Amino acid sequence: MFVIERRDSETKARTGMLKTAHGDIPTPIFMPVGTAGTVKGILQRDLMEDINARIILGNTYHLYLRPGTEIMRGAGGLHRFMSWKRPLLTDSGGYQVFSLTGNRKLTQEGAIFKSHIDGSKHIFTPENTIDIQRIFGADIIMAFDECTPFPCDYGYAKKSIELSHQWLDRAVTRFRETEPVWGHEQFLFPIVQGSTFDDLRKQSAEKIASVSMMGNAIGGLSVGEPAEEMYRTLEIVNEILPQEKPRYLMGVGTPVNILEAIERGIDMFDCVMPTRNGRNGMLFTNEGIINIKNRKWIDDYSPIDPDGPSTVSLYYSKAYLRHLVISGEILGAQISSIHNLAFYLKLVTEARKQIEEGNFKKWKDQMTKKLSERL
Amino acid sequence: MFVIERRDSETKARTGMLKTAHGDIPTPIFMPVGTAGTVKGILQRDLMEDINARIILGNTYHLYLRPGTEIMRGAGGLHRFMSWKRPLLTDSGGYQVFSLTGNRKLTQEGAIFKSHIDGSKHIFTPENTIDIQRIFGADIIMAFDECTPFPCDYGYAKKSIELSHQWLDRAVTRFRETEPVWGHEQFLFPIVQGSTFDDLRKQSAEKIASVSMMGNAIGGLSVGEPAEEMYRTLEIVNEILPQEKPRYLMGVGTPVNILEAIERGIDMFDCVMPTRNGRNGMLFTNEGIINIKNRKWIDDYSPIDPDGPSTVSLYYSKAYLRHLVISGEILGAQISSIHNLAFYLKLVTEARKQIEEGNFKKWKDQMTKKLSERL
Repeated sequence: MFVIERRDSETKARTGMLKTAHGDIPTPIFMPVGTAGTVKGILQRDLMEDINARIILGNTYHLYLRPGTEIMRGAGGLHRFMSWKRPLLTDSGGYQVFSLTGNRKLTQEGAIFKSHIDGSKHIFTPENTIDIQRIFGADIIMAFDECTPFPCDYGYAKKSIELSHQWLDRAVTRFRETEPVWGHEQFLFPIVQGSTFDDLRKQSAEKIASVSMMGNAIGGLSVGEPAEEMYRTLEIVNEILPQEKPRYLMGVGTPVNILEAIERGIDMFDCVMPTRNGRNGMLFTNEGIINIKNRKWIDDYSPIDPDGPSTVSLYYSKAYLRHLVISGEILGAQISSIHNLAFYLKLVTEARKQIEEGNFKKWKDQMTKKLSERL
Repeated sequence: MFVIERRDSETKARTGMLKTAHGDIPTPIFMPVGTAGTVKGILQRDLMEDINARIILGNTYHLYLRPGTEIMRGAGGLHRFMSWKRPLLTDSGGYQVFSLTGNRKLTQEGAIFKSHIDGSKHIFTPENTIDIQRIFGADIIMAFDECTPFPCDYGYAKKSIELSHQWLDRAVTRFRETEPVWGHEQFLFPIVQGSTFDDLRKQSAEKIASVSMMGNAIGGLSVGEPAEEMYRTLEIVNEILPQEKPRYLMGVGTPVNILEAIERGIDMFDCVMPTRNGRNGMLFTNEGIINIKNRKWIDDYSPIDPDGPSTVSLYYSKAYLRHLVISGEILGAQISSIHNLAFYLKLVTEARKQIEEGNFKKWKDQMTKKLSERL
């Protein structure tokens, strides 16, 4: 269930509470990505206590291939398998399968693909991805769709949403015909596609709204298009997606992208950027972006981030973290990932507070100036 | 300062307390290895709270090359650089330099070597390795010596200890001529060498005892010789090394090696085995050794180790850890390393308790039967 708590008077931003069987999620929220049942490099206790993650993601494509559906069933679902007691969301595998260029084939039935692990052949359909996600047991599950690349020609994008919409009807039917495997409620989110074509996005948003699920997602953005096109698309789509339901912008993005999307009425986000870029030494702070590998940090013994989104941001120095990252030490990836995720969580928590206090627009305009600077 | 607290009546085992400026260390003790200023994959807080490490190691060779002595000086020493408040020990770099076969040259003066990082040329001498370790500021520092390989012919081993003993005199002189850089006391430990030749080991132990340092180390073991040769060597050497001073067996070993050495009067240990083998999926438990990659664990949803040396041993299942290690996920290395180090610390803590209770010999004989079994 989703409850809107506060609407910003100057923008489309809002705060809300998404209630799931594994806990309530205050929105706007950022969801750390735990592809293979692990947020890379981070212990579950640090996700809870230091980062304060309220919900994390798992990827159906990865988990289906390894450890596989039977191991997940034996464990009692993904929550138990990975010892994560808070809410979970799983994607449908669509995005990953369609990234396997040359190793997948699209049919009316679904997508046939070869495993990146052992080359074995598999099929994902709207129905079996529901069945798999029922077994995984995430609180929020996603409909199987085609995520079009950018750029994408109009004809392809149009055909693609037609197929994705047919698939959606089949997914919704299967979802309604089946029960949760583990006794707790699951919500199915359909996904708006349509590349950067306004009429296709509108058409897709109308279709997605029409299936009346608890929440809705927007996919196929942040795939290479200019940020302005993404923002325009969000405005068009959010005019159509119902106000009272949560809106999840998939795979986005930078801190600035997130604030711009919150302003346009988005409630939920996920992205690998804080962990992937963190492992490579990119750190996000309120003052701007740090490339910790830069020589200028070699003798900077001050804390990683005095603003301290996580305890590690205050505990370790820039010089030490630089040493770890330059030396290829695992601990460098761990510290950077904890810091960045905590920063993202703190950013959305602060956005929520600013909306509540009626100060969002002014705060956001100040923040976006600093967030993308290079320190 | 070192105080013997209890001597076992049936064996040479004893308990003690090693007092340093950064805290007291109960012995017998195992010291996790933090080569480049990080125990690989483990946050300092987990080293303290979950593993209960009382002292950890740093490697002079690695830290001298990167980040370098000047960065370490700027930080205020290794403790501050790596934000570690408990005791530290640094080795002299000898072991690493002599492992650089083909990239090092031995002279009377010291060892000339090429950096494994950038090929740059450096020299380690008995004097400059004291100076470097003064700057690093570890509570215990090591004399520079040659660690002979196994097998080693008698003539080479004899010449090697002659050189190492000359170097020791120079190191002791430099140590006595210099003051700690950071205001806290440092102890220099000399190292017994002599390969597996009893007369050379005796000769070396006598030399080492004669320089009257606060504690003594035994090197050049666990380099490929049969375990029985190592145990015999320990017996010979420990007859000569003074009873009232701590004895540190360098680079050893398996849990069984450690119990056998405690029985023979060793107080301190370090080894990369719990972390290195842990990263590869080998887990130590009281019931024996687990290769978590083995297919038999694929659907074992029981805790990693119900005996629970660390919180992660109880929190995560074998099936989950197997999935992480098989998938090459960083978290697998983290969990395995925390578990194994906590197991090692728990083992020496239990040995201490058994010595205190006068039950060591019986307990040790029971434990050694189980510890090397393969589960």
